[in-house]
Amino acid sequence: MSSNSKYDPLTVLNLGERLSKVPQIVEKVGDKFTEWDVKEVGDGNLNLVFIVKSEIGSVIVKQALPYVRLVGDSWPLSLSRSFFEYHALIRQDRRDPGKVPKVYYFNEEQAIIVMEYLSPHTILRGKLINGEKVNGLAVSLGEFCARTLFRGSDLAMVTSDLKSDAALFLGNVEIMQITEDLVFTDPYFDADRNNHTEPLDPIVQKLRSDVAMKIEVQNMFKKYISHGETMLHGDLHSGSVMCTEAETKIIDPEFCSYGPMGFDIGMLTANFLMSYFSQPAHRKSDELDDYQNWILEVIKQVFDTFEKEFQSLWVSERDGILFPSSLFEDQGQTSEAGLKKTLMNIWNDALGFCGIEMHRRLLSLAHNADFELIDDLAFKASLEARNLMMGRELILNRSSVKNAKELILMAEKFNKENLL
Amino acid sequence: MSSNSKYDPLTVLNLGERLSKVPQIVEKVGDKFTEWDVKEVGDGNLNLVFIVKSEIGSVIVKQALPYVRLVGDSWPLSLSRSFFEYHALIRQDRRDPGKVPKVYYFNEEQAIIVMEYLSPHTILRGKLINGEKVNGLAVSLGEFCARTLFRGSDLAMVTSDLKSDAALFLGNVEIMQITEDLVFTDPYFDADRNNHTEPLDPIVQKLRSDVAMKIEVQNMFKKYISHGETMLHGDLHSGSVMCTEAETKIIDPEFCSYGPMGFDIGMLTANFLMSYFSQPAHRKSDELDDYQNWILEVIKQVFDTFEKEFQSLWVSERDGILFPSSLFEDQGQTSEAGLKKTLMNIWNDALGFCGIEMHRRLLSLAHNADFELIDDLAFKASLEARNLMMGRELILNRSSVKNAKELILMAEKFNKENLL
Repeated sequence: MSSNSKYDPLTVLNLGERLSKVPQIVEKVGDKFTEWDVKEVGDGNLNLVFIVKSEIGSVIVKQALPYVRLVGDSWPLSLSRSFFEYHALIRQDRRDPGKVPKVYYFNEEQAIIVMEYLSPHTILRGKLINGEKVNGLAVSLGEFCARTLFRGSDLAMVTSDLKSDAALFLGNVEIMQITEDLVFTDPYFDADRNNHTEPLDPIVQKLRSDVAMKIEVQNMFKKYISHGETMLHGDLHSGSVMCTEAETKIIDPEFCSYGPMGFDIGMLTANFLMSYFSQPAHRKSDELDDYQNWILEVIKQVFDTFEKEFQSLWVSERDGILFPSSLFEDQGQTSEAGLKKTLMNIWNDALGFCGIEMHRRLLSLAHNADFELIDDLAFKASLEARNLMMGRELILNRSSVKNAKELILMAEKFNKENLL
Repeated sequence: MSSNSKYDPLTVLNLGERLSKVPQIVEKVGDKFTEWDVKEVGDGNLNLVFIVKSEIGSVIVKQALPYVRLVGDSWPLSLSRSFFEYHALIRQDRRDPGKVPKVYYFNEEQAIIVMEYLSPHTILRGKLINGEKVNGLAVSLGEFCARTLFRGSDLAMVTSDLKSDAALFLGNVEIMQITEDLVFTDPYFDADRNNHTEPLDPIVQKLRSDVAMKIEVQNMFKKYISHGETMLHGDLHSGSVMCTEAETKIIDPEFCSYGPMGFDIGMLTANFLMSYFSQPAHRKSDELDDYQNWILEVIKQVFDTFEKEFQSLWVSERDGILFPSSLFEDQGQTSEAGLKKTLMNIWNDALGFCGIEMHRRLLSLAHNADFELIDDLAFKASLEARNLMMGRELILNRSSVKNAKELILMAEKFNKENLL
């Protein structure tokens, strides 16, 4: 396939013929494309995703569509997100090797990434709904956040390389606009694309009238759009994580941009909390406590691992222009207070982003299966209300939550409340 | 002159022949280049600057050199800074019309900007050393900061335009590195390029041992390098301001980058404070109080004007994605608390940058004439000590300084101290 052929969406029928000349693909699945088993499995909001299997092996073929799949061609979207996903994937693989799918082939014109097929991995969100536990989940996620955030920042990178990357990812403007609109703006007024569970009306009304909270949201928004501290995944929720019982991989970084250190880990935490609050709809009471406690323990371990790994990188890989050892260790002085301050800033920002993500997944366009699978609307709303009100608490009072233990106590408190 | 001819530095002798074919220049000074009066007047650290006069008119010709003029060709420096200065000038002129020199012609390959010759304007720093007052100085500077910072930010700009500009200016990497090194790093350890007045040794020792302060400096440094909130001038000191008795212009934005809102106004304040602390060496006692009070009044008025103008733009031009009226005014709610919070963040950041600039101008490579013209080293050091220790106070305790009045009281307190 020529790299400058005109963009054309793949289909199950034409994929084989179109890709069977690409050496990197042939190497994985052979060139007998008529014998390939091709399935379209894209269940996300934006792209075509094919699994291609042969007797020899398997690959994933991901192709961007020129519009938002969830909405249709009334919402056009640049194919260039595929370019940014590719560039994010190769950087993430360098910064935390083995945690993201290997990229075999990239075609910019066709917006196609061919990559490692993860099997028997399944999406974490489904596992959380099913009540499955994943060994090592928190450690994998905490390390991924620490390594990608640290190694993509001015704590570690050559500053000219960082500035060049930051400029590159500023081109991902249409994708960032989705986050700007759906995450930071739409939830807080009656936007056309919004939807929420009807019994939540009084709480939604309350949140949209809460000027002090909306101003804090805007302050976090400012950080998201202008504080380019590191290369983010940008969309790190439980639908972007695939696991077996004991292995965890991170996928789909097409929302990557340079942004604040606390963003990814805050989004991730929000998705665990949403799973937590939705559990009473998915578990019988004899399993509920155990599984909810496991989720809270995962949240705590993600942060514990993140801090431990970040600290270790601070000691061993702090080669960037920030907190240079020439000013501290080389003078016989410690930079430990700088590490503590940095971690505290990340923690506080993370809680703010966490609260906002907890809102937007119930109030804006894109919702989560955790809650959407609940048929009883009154029950659903009662669980969602806890989630919304804890989100508000985090946005307003994040600086008074000192550590993950206090965060967990807050979740347990809201989990008992009857808010409707 | 062809725009793709090989770079060649201008001289007083060849400038006329080389530029007399450029229509935009001919329009200002005619084409009889043998009758042009050409003088090289560059007294800055980086560039060639020529005044070209004829019977018809006058222009300034500024050409970048491929090295740091202050140091020599041992410190090479990209010519592209001329490109960034040009792009900053045309944006500043749009955002605060009439405050920067009009650009007549730009040649990227030759790194030449031909622009308005400001006359009889002279550099503000000289005026401050001479004890001259400038009517309207504070209002001009406060408005310039408010208009350029506000109009270059996500409060006002179309976000895709902002991201494109932010990416553009991330290319100004060599110039930013000068600030990264000379402002934020070198002052705080014994860097090769440093110099300071010898009697300051004990105070310099104290500052470089102050880990808590150095960590705050690194936090401000993080903001400078990664918090791209708006397009900065980047080097807004009293040497970048030219005035008559009643008119103020801002020049030399080649250090422009996207950065934190508080940077420019903080740097500017530092330069007024350095002038203030150096005045006992330049004024007789019967004039000293009056002139020092005038400087402090200018500082206060700059901030008062800045806040007033920023507030006015907040009401009339808040068309960006931050604090959108759809979330506040359109809902019958006020965003005033958001304005207050934004101004408070700018104020606190400004004080931090102010303290750092007060340090680097006495400890790092590039010093200020305000202090450098003082021959009596013991006297010089005694005044510089006040400046250094107030810088430290600002870096460490900036969040407890509530307003410009308190800042002025702090300056008056340090101005009485005997620190050596």
